[in-house]
Order: sequence, then C-alpha cells, then structure tokens
Amino acid sequence: MDRLRIGIIGLGWFGEIHAETIAGVANLELAALCTRTPERLAEMGEKFGVKKLYRDYHDMLADPNIDAVSICTMWDQHREPAIAALKAGKHVFLEKPIASTVEDGLAITEASKSAKGILYIGHIVRFNPRYRMAKQAIDEGRIGKIVALSSRRNIPAAWTPTILDKIGPIVGDAIHDTDIMLWFTGQRIVSAYAQTVDVRGLKHPDIGQTMYRFADGASATLETVWCMPEKTPFDIDERMSIIGTEGIIHVQDTFPNLGIVDGDRLHSPDTTYWPMFEGVRGGALRDEFTYFATCALDGKEVTIGTPEDATAALEATLAAEESARTGNVVRIG
Amino acid sequence: MDRLRIGIIGLGWFGEIHAETIAGVANLELAALCTRTPERLAEMGEKFGVKKLYRDYHDMLADPNIDAVSICTMWDQHREPAIAALKAGKHVFLEKPIASTVEDGLAITEASKSAKGILYIGHIVRFNPRYRMAKQAIDEGRIGKIVALSSRRNIPAAWTPTILDKIGPIVGDAIHDTDIMLWFTGQRIVSAYAQTVDVRGLKHPDIGQTMYRFADGASATLETVWCMPEKTPFDIDERMSIIGTEGIIHVQDTFPNLGIVDGDRLHSPDTTYWPMFEGVRGGALRDEFTYFATCALDGKEVTIGTPEDATAALEATLAAEESARTGNVVRIG
Amino acid sequence: MDRLRIGIIGLGWFGEIHAETIAGVANLELAALCTRTPERLAEMGEKFGVKKLYRDYHDMLADPNIDAVSICTMWDQHREPAIAALKAGKHVFLEKPIASTVEDGLAITEASKSAKGILYIGHIVRFNPRYRMAKQAIDEGRIGKIVALSSRRNIPAAWTPTILDKIGPIVGDAIHDTDIMLWFTGQRIVSAYAQTVDVRGLKHPDIGQTMYRFADGASATLETVWCMPEKTPFDIDERMSIIGTEGIIHVQDTFPNLGIVDGDRLHSPDTTYWPMFEGVRGGALRDEFTYFATCALDGKEVTIGTPEDATAALEATLAAEESARTGNVVRIG
Amino acid sequence: MDRLRIGIIGLGWFGEIHAETIAGVANLELAALCTRTPERLAEMGEKFGVKKLYRDYHDMLADPNIDAVSICTMWDQHREPAIAALKAGKHVFLEKPIASTVEDGLAITEASKSAKGILYIGHIVRFNPRYRMAKQAIDEGRIGKIVALSSRRNIPAAWTPTILDKIGPIVGDAIHDTDIMLWFTGQRIVSAYAQTVDVRGLKHPDIGQTMYRFADGASATLETVWCMPEKTPFDIDERMSIIGTEGIIHVQDTFPNLGIVDGDRLHSPDTTYWPMFEGVRGGALRDEFTYFATCALDGKEVTIGTPEDATAALEATLAAEESARTGNVVRIG
Repeated sequence: MDRLRIGIIGLGWFGEIHAETIAGVANLELAALCTRTPERLAEMGEKFGVKKLYRDYHDMLADPNIDAVSICTMWDQHREPAIAALKAGKHVFLEKPIASTVEDGLAITEASKSAKGILYIGHIVRFNPRYRMAKQAIDEGRIGKIVALSSRRNIPAAWTPTILDKIGPIVGDAIHDTDIMLWFTGQRIVSAYAQTVDVRGLKHPDIGQTMYRFADGASATLETVWCMPEKTPFDIDERMSIIGTEGIIHVQDTFPNLGIVDGDRLHSPDTTYWPMFEGVRGGALRDEFTYFATCALDGKEVTIGTPEDATAALEATLAAEESARTGNVVRIG
Repeated sequence: MDRLRIGIIGLGWFGEIHAETIAGVANLELAALCTRTPERLAEMGEKFGVKKLYRDYHDMLADPNIDAVSICTMWDQHREPAIAALKAGKHVFLEKPIASTVEDGLAITEASKSAKGILYIGHIVRFNPRYRMAKQAIDEGRIGKIVALSSRRNIPAAWTPTILDKIGPIVGDAIHDTDIMLWFTGQRIVSAYAQTVDVRGLKHPDIGQTMYRFADGASATLETVWCMPEKTPFDIDERMSIIGTEGIIHVQDTFPNLGIVDGDRLHSPDTTYWPMFEGVRGGALRDEFTYFATCALDGKEVTIGTPEDATAALEATLAAEESARTGNVVRIG
Repeated sequence: MDRLRIGIIGLGWFGEIHAETIAGVANLELAALCTRTPERLAEMGEKFGVKKLYRDYHDMLADPNIDAVSICTMWDQHREPAIAALKAGKHVFLEKPIASTVEDGLAITEASKSAKGILYIGHIVRFNPRYRMAKQAIDEGRIGKIVALSSRRNIPAAWTPTILDKIGPIVGDAIHDTDIMLWFTGQRIVSAYAQTVDVRGLKHPDIGQTMYRFADGASATLETVWCMPEKTPFDIDERMSIIGTEGIIHVQDTFPNLGIVDGDRLHSPDTTYWPMFEGVRGGALRDEFTYFATCALDGKEVTIGTPEDATAALEATLAAEESARTGNVVRIG
Repeated sequence: MDRLRIGIIGLGWFGEIHAETIAGVANLELAALCTRTPERLAEMGEKFGVKKLYRDYHDMLADPNIDAVSICTMWDQHREPAIAALKAGKHVFLEKPIASTVEDGLAITEASKSAKGILYIGHIVRFNPRYRMAKQAIDEGRIGKIVALSSRRNIPAAWTPTILDKIGPIVGDAIHDTDIMLWFTGQRIVSAYAQTVDVRGLKHPDIGQTMYRFADGASATLETVWCMPEKTPFDIDERMSIIGTEGIIHVQDTFPNLGIVDGDRLHSPDTTYWPMFEGVRGGALRDEFTYFATCALDGKEVTIGTPEDATAALEATLAAEESARTGNVVRIG
C-alpha cells in the first residue's frame, strides 16, 4: 500500500481545511467524508470529488477500504469517535485538544495502547520549522537550562465569535504554547495561575493571561488575546522567547516576515500553518499529515503528538482556566 | 535666574550618569557633588569640573547658592535626604523607586506638599517618545478602552550582579512598566501575582514574571529578566503591547532599530534613555532633566513623575514581590 | 547672553515646525518671524506670541536685537537671504539642501568664511541617535573599512504632491542619506547613476533609485519612494545598512519601534525627527537647534552640518538627477 | 507508477542537499547517484543507501529503471547532461542558473520542446511561501501596478570563498530576485546597470549592486553581498519590497523570525529553504521536488521554473555583470 485512504469525521471550517491539505499530500488519498448535515456533506463531497459520504461515522469506520480517519469534531466530542476508530483498526489523526477533560484524554490514550492503528494528536505548532529548529538547539544544549519562557498567540476578533461559544482562548490556543513549553523544558507543570478578561460578553472570555511554574522552578507567561481589533495587520501575532542559562531563543511569525499593504490596510497573513496556493494547502498542516501518513505506512512509532503529551497540555490549560474562574493558584499533580 | 544650580547626592554609577547628562541641559548648571567616599568625590569633582564637593548632604543643602538637588542614593536611603532637601527649599529630582516602602513614599509625598521647591520622581520611561506618543493616542481614544497589557524589560546578566544585591527585578525594573500601565489605563491595580526564578543565587532572584489585575477588569503581564546571556544583542529588550477594544499599540526599543555587528557579535545598544555622544548624554534622561528644570524655573506644576504616581507604582511592585515570596495572590487597597 | 534671540525667515510648513521646536529649546528665544503673506504672518505671530513680524527679511536682519535666523525659504531661494544674514552678522541655521546649485552652495560657503556668525546647514539625520551611534562605531573601527551601503527613505504619497512641484526625491530626500554616507565613509563620491519613475505625472518624478561609487571603491544604493500608498503604516520607511570588512550596521526607524493600530489602520509614526508633545516639538530637530544655539553662544566651531559637507551632498544628488534624466552614468569631480 | 525513481548527477554540497531532501518526498525514490570522484561516490552511496552508482552520467541515463534526474553539476556544465537526459526521455530537475550563457540556455530550452520528460529549472525562491503569497496578492490586483522593487540577498563571507571561484553574486544569487521580479511584474528587463566591489581578491568580486529598468518603466535595485562578516546573525539576509501604485509588499526572511542566542552569538538560521530535521530536509526545496515529481507523475505542465523564464533571468544577470565590468549601462533585447 503506497497511499493511505483517509476519511474526515467532522466538516466544520477546520475539517474543510484538512481536506484542502490532504489534496497536497502524496501518500494520502481523501476517500471519505462524514458530517451530520446533508447539505454540507453534499457540498464538500462535490468540492473534493469524494464519493464515499457518511452522516454516521460508524458507517465510515465499517468500511474496510478506509485506512485512516481525521477527526475534527468539537473538542468535547472527541472521545467516542476516537475510541471507535481505534477499535475499528483505523489510523487516527485527532485534532487538538485531545479532549475536553483529562478523563477523556486518558481514555483515548488507553484505547490507543492496544490499537492496530496509530494515534496522532494534531499539535501542529510542533511542525512550525521555527519551533522545530528551536527544539534542536535546546536539545544540543546551546541555551543551557531553560529558566523562563513567555509566549503570545493572539488572533483577530473577527475570527472568534463562533469559536468563543465552544472554547476559550486558554484551552483553545494557549494549549499550543503549553505543549511547546512542555516539549522544550522536558518538565511537568506544577501550578497554574491565570486571569481572563471578558470583552464582548460571549460564552467564554476573550482574553487569557496564564502563568505556569514548572517542576524544576522555571516560570512561564502565556498571552492569548482573541479580540485583536479589526485593523490589526496580524492573522496570528505569535511569539515565544525561551530564556536559558546560556542563551535565549526568540520566535516570531509575523510582519516583517510578510506584509501586504493594499487599499484596505497592512496585512501580515500566516504563511506557516496552512497557506493555500492554487487551491491546495501547504505549510505545517501538510507536514503534519505527511508525518502521520509516513508513520502509518512505514510502521514508525509516533513520537510527536502523542496522547500522553496532549493530555499533559490539556491538564495544564484546564488548571489555568480553573484558576481564572476561582482567582486562586491551582496546583497540578 | 536662567539656570538652575543643581547638586547631586549619591555618586554611584547612576549619579555619574546624571552628571554626564546635566552637562547637556542648557538651563541646568552642575554646581555641587556629594558622596561619602573621599576618593570618589575627588574623582568626580575633577571629571566634571565641580568645585563644591560635600561628604555630608546636609552641608550641600545649607548652601543658599544651590537651587536644586538630584538624589541618587540607594532606594532604601531616599526618605531622609529627600525630606531634608524639600525642607531646605530645594527643588528635588529623586530617582525611582520613590522609596523602599510605601510608608516612606507617603512621607516624602507629604513633605512635598508644603515645600517651596518642586519634587519630581525619575520615572524616565515617561520621556521615551514611543510611550509618550502611545499615551497621546490612548488619550485621543484611538484604541478604545484598554483591556490587556503585556510588557518586557530584560537586561544582560553582566550588568546585574551588583544591583541584585540591592534590589530585585520587579521593584527595580517592572516598576517602570507598572508606572506606564497605571498612566495609560488611569486605573488602580487591585491585585498582584508574581513568580520569580533564582538563577545565580544572588541576594534577589534574577527573573520576575508579574501579573496585575486593574480595577476595571483589565489584566497585565510583566516580564523582567535580569540575566540575559552574555551574547544577547540587546542592552534592553524592552517591549509593550496595549490591547484596547478598538486598537492595539506596540512599542519595541530594540533591533532592528539599531544593530551593530562587529568582531564580537551583534549589539543593539540603547539610543533612547541616555546615549552618550561626545562625552555628554542625551535621550530621555536629558529630556527628564529639562522638564524638571523648566518646571522649577517657570513655576509650572509637575504633572509627570508625581510622588503619588510613584508611590502607587511602588505599592504594586512590592505586592508582586510579596506574592512571589508567598505563592499567593496579593490584593491591594 | 544666555539665550539666542532667533527669527525665522520663511513660514511654510517647515518654518512652522521650526517655530514649534524652538519653543522647547532653553537657550533659544523665538523673537521674530518673516514671510511675504500678511495673513500667514499674522497667524503665526499670534500662534507663537511673537511681536516682531516682517514681510521683508532685510528688515529683520537690520534689527540689532536679533542674534540669529533660521532660513526656511524654498531651496532655490537660499543664496540671497543666507548671504545677507551672514553679512549682517547673524548666526544662520539654513535648511537643507544648502542650495539648488553647486555654485550657490559655494557662494554661501564662501560668505560664511568671513562672517561673524556661525553657519549651520540643517542636515537633521546627523542628530538621529541611531546614526550618531553608528558613526561612533565606525570611527572606533568596529566594522573595518566600509565597502558597501544601502539606504531607503520612503514617505507617503499623500505628503508629497506639493513638494513634488518644487523638488524631487533624490535632491529632496536621498541627500540625507548621501550626506550620512559621505560622513560615514569619509570618501568623495566619484560617480552617480540613477533611475526615476514618474507615477503621478507631477513636476518631478515620484521615485528615485540612485547608485554611487565612492573614491575608494565602495558602492552604494539609495531608494527614495515619495508615493507610498495610502495605507502604508510608515510615516517614514527609513533604513540603512553599512557593510564593512569586519562588521555591519543596520538602522531602521519604523515599526516595530512603535505601531498604533486604531480604527483606521496600523500607523508607525515618526518619534525621532520632530515628535510633538503638548504642543512643543522634540527629537532630532530640537537637538539640532540646541547644537546650533550652543555653538553660537559658546563660540564653538560648527563641525556637523558644515556648508562644505552640505555642498558635497548637493553635488552628488544633482549628479544623480542628471543621470536619471540622461540615462548615463555621471562622473563627479 | 506511484514514485519517480530519480538519480542525481553531480554530488557537490548541493547535490548532497538534493539527496537529503529527496529522502523526505513521498513520491520520489532516490535510486542512483553519479559523480566523477570514486571516494565521494562511495561515501554518498553509503550515506543514502543507494546501490546504483555511476561515474559517467551516460551510464545512468542508459538505465531504463531511472525515470528522472536532478542535475547539480557546475553552472557552466549544464548543457550537455541536461540535453542528454532530455534525449534519453528522463524527467529533468536542473539547478539554477539554467546555464552560463544565454546560448546554452536556449539550447536546453529547445531540447525540452521535443522531449518526453518534463524540464524544471530549480528557481527555489518561487516556493518560498512569502513570495508565493505576494504573487497571489499581485495577481489579485491588490497593490495596483508595480512601479519599483528592491531586494537584498546577502550571505556570510565564510560560505563563499569556494563559490566565488566559480560564480559571482549577481548571476549566482541576484538571479533569484531577478526571476522573482520578472514573475511579479510580468515585464521584460530592458537595461541593467551594476557595480561590484572586490573585497577579498577572489576570482569574482564579493559584492554586487544591480539596477534594472523594466519595459513598462518600473525600476529595481538588487543587493547581493557575499561577504557578511563572521558575526552576522543571518544565514541569509533576504528582503524584498514591491512598490505598487495601490499598495506595497514587504518580505523578510530573517530575525525576528527566529533568533538563537547561544554561547557564541545570535544566529538567525534559515528555516525556509532547506531546514534539516532528523536528518531529512524540508522547506522550499522539498516543495520544489514535490512539485517536480507531481508534474512528472500526473503529466501536468510545468508552469513554474520553465526554461524560458530561467533564460530571461540569466540574460538580465549576465547583462548586469557586463555592466559592472564595463562601467556602462547595458541595454537588453
């Protein structure tokens, strides 16, 4: 088998982006789609030229000609399809966060232990080449021991009203930086303190500021603003600094990298995560799918995006949200 | 009187920088110096061509031909000389922090109420033109209501071992950003949470990460790393972002502003605060002294660097330090 | 005499900026104004509280209570007032370019030789602290011998239609970078090649790209775009790189230095040259006037902004404009 | 056929990078290697686990189980292997510049017309996502008509002594920006003027500064410095600005994108072109090979990296080099 036949479960905006990305991955074939809404299913089937269309994911999992699934359902609806897919012997690409509770995360992890297929959790930032190269530098000892970190991952207000009905910025976005910080330090997080600000009165607050303490004493702050004003140039204002005893690493994925001034304003579009060229998406998302497909096809162990790492990141961000709700520092583990 | 005759009390490294700056201020005349160490006093007297040299500041204050003093003693030795100078009718330029305790800050403030001279507290960042222009934009309503802020003020490890015996990075440096945030928001700070990291085992920890809550719900994080590694290009890695409901302001005083690659490495020297050209210092410190001299000579009220503002910034940073020591959130006021 | 009583000749937009700046210079007193238009003269007199108002500069020069003049007339109307002012014994601050022809520049220079007052040509960029610090680094030998330079000095289209009726971007703006490059290299320019682009059909082309060869073989490119589109964030997109055999210097006076996103777009206003705070202008223009006043009052020789340097910069930029007109490389000297 | 079996002709440093990249392309199989030096051939064969090793490329071309070749010989040794490979029916990935003379470029182009296989010229910058997105914005009319461009592509001195024995910075590197500018404007270049600086006395000068005029009047400057000093943070200091009548685009592939301060200095390594992670290279080079393989396997026409475009870029850069040698403006076409 040279190409993995993959189906997508959940066709919201990110499920569609998965499809647009899979089209550019040589060892993947987009073979099936699943969503509950018939109109959306028909529309997406036509757009991607996919014949196998399902309204119930169990039917997709029952198809022996589907090798793998990507799961893009809502984050609190991950447990059932993920475990069912693993039990059906499929390879599973599960979007982050792994789940909405640590308990669900552990159950999914457990299910993956005895599964025939691989399980990969979509922590896409690990495929941003800046962070990968940073990780290499850290592993080579070039910055010594990490003592402090700070991150920002801010997005425009226009993008978030719908998302903020489902998930807040700490679990929704700071989880990326939490995962990266755990990866970089190799430490556990032992406490979380966070403050949120509710700007627009939506279900979740628009802004989260989080502080972690790591087991070895390192300290971190994480900023996630989901209400950058209309005229911000940044699709993502994303930065991280890693302070070591012997060095520092700075990452920044914004202007001046790329800036387009047009009749409207300066735009600094993302070119890293899922840029689209000629109808197909590339960037880190394609690299992630390539990694997933290659692990599955070649029988290689998944070492990036493991459910254990994903659950640890989930646990820390949930603790931060609890801290923001209660006003107290939350100890972990 | 066209020029204010000024004396400096305290001739550590920053007292010397005061002297190098006063030399370039047209309406100031450096007329006297005071420090306890005779050798240092003689050396500085010769360097600046100053004849009136004192080992006891009371003697300087007794001189009727001295109009003003700048006080650069240790931060916990501010109360006595400041109050004595005010009582002696001198104009007083007092370095920040106003004092080492809120009680001292209030006593100095109180003494200034009945004084003949003016009292200015050296919160130099208010004379950084980026922050001044940001303040103008905020006051014009261009970014709406401020909902979140974040700042960084990091300096090289090589500069701090001596300072860290006297003061830590939160009260020592985050107080700048605290003052600016209070100025920008026009709000009180109601709670502080902070974490410190002790990297080198000096008297104070090297790193502080602080989080504030403002009375109207705005939230802020402040980073102060006093151990940037040897090869960092930055004299100061200084940044602030102010998130408003209608706009955002970004300030950054580092490379690419100015970068000098020489045989050693990339350097990004400060050109904003007290750059020295041909033996005289300019920048924000000169603007600060010009403001001080102009207020004193023209009888204008001091509205920047008031003791009330300085005491509020002190109170918040001391609360942050208490939080870092105890691990608890500290409520203020 | 503690303060120099100064008059301004020419009250266009930049004459007004001179006035707004002089107000913040302690050793200058704005004592007189001169322009041909009575309404403008009255309006400016009222705005700045100046009593001595002249429509003919000869009358101002005849006043023994005027010590100095700043000349802001059109660049091709510099020769007469400058020489007259020097002959009248006044100190002269003459805006750049020194003149519109090399012949005029030489005549002004000649007149300054026998004058009682000093002559300073307003090459303001020499008071930008980034370039001053760069010059120090170069003089200290930190980047070795300069082998190549490149610069950009671009401004918004909205600012230039009126200016483009009077002067083009090479003589108008690249002259700044030409002067700086001559200062940094200590070399003569031996040839110029330039291309212009006429975008809006105004009297002068909107864009100039210039290339110089220096006597020692160093090479330089200079970009001046006077038609940055409406939504550009930059007041000035100003950059210079200096390549040496042992090092490199980069200067950039734009975002991320300061960025203000408001309801309109991202703005990156200039805070270096003449930022206005509370009605008074500071920055490099104030430093320039302070330098001028201090040289005049203290009898110090003018070493920055000499007419010789200003004429050399004029000669090179005029050669570049000739090259752009003829399509040929123009040899100098 | 699902995977293209590819051989590499020429195993210098870049041939090896090709091999390290092909290893990560799902629809390519590295099947053969060819170089004249037996030791190098054996070493590379072992490193990449390739069994088919040739010292004469004709032998590789005779193998019916080789579908494609990448040609990494010296730029003046492109014509013969490229034409031979096309005649042998192979798909050809030919490194840029297409050749060392326009005549050779035309001959290779001609050979590709009747060939069974596709011909792709490795203009890698077209796969940098910043430029691709810029091209999209230009094609959408977002910046209006392009009136001026400027670029920089500078690399460290330490990398270039060997290369400078073979090729200079204008044809060697400015050809990238030349190709991109031709792509962006859709215009011909009608004249070139260039200046070079010889810093180290190697076979070719270290620095090139080039100016182009486009057929529609647009003007461009291109900087290529191949002697950035030892301590420069940049692997590549790469920037381009595109000035349109309605907008501007800025591209910059350097710090602050990624900066690593270690015990040595600040490093800003390239993460765009061929970053290596776990022994395999990704980035634009992988995207280029993926594009090549996909065109070849799916029978799609090559529209990026055509020999016509590559020859036009070669012609312009050769004209610039002639200008630098003669001191005259060189007209093209």
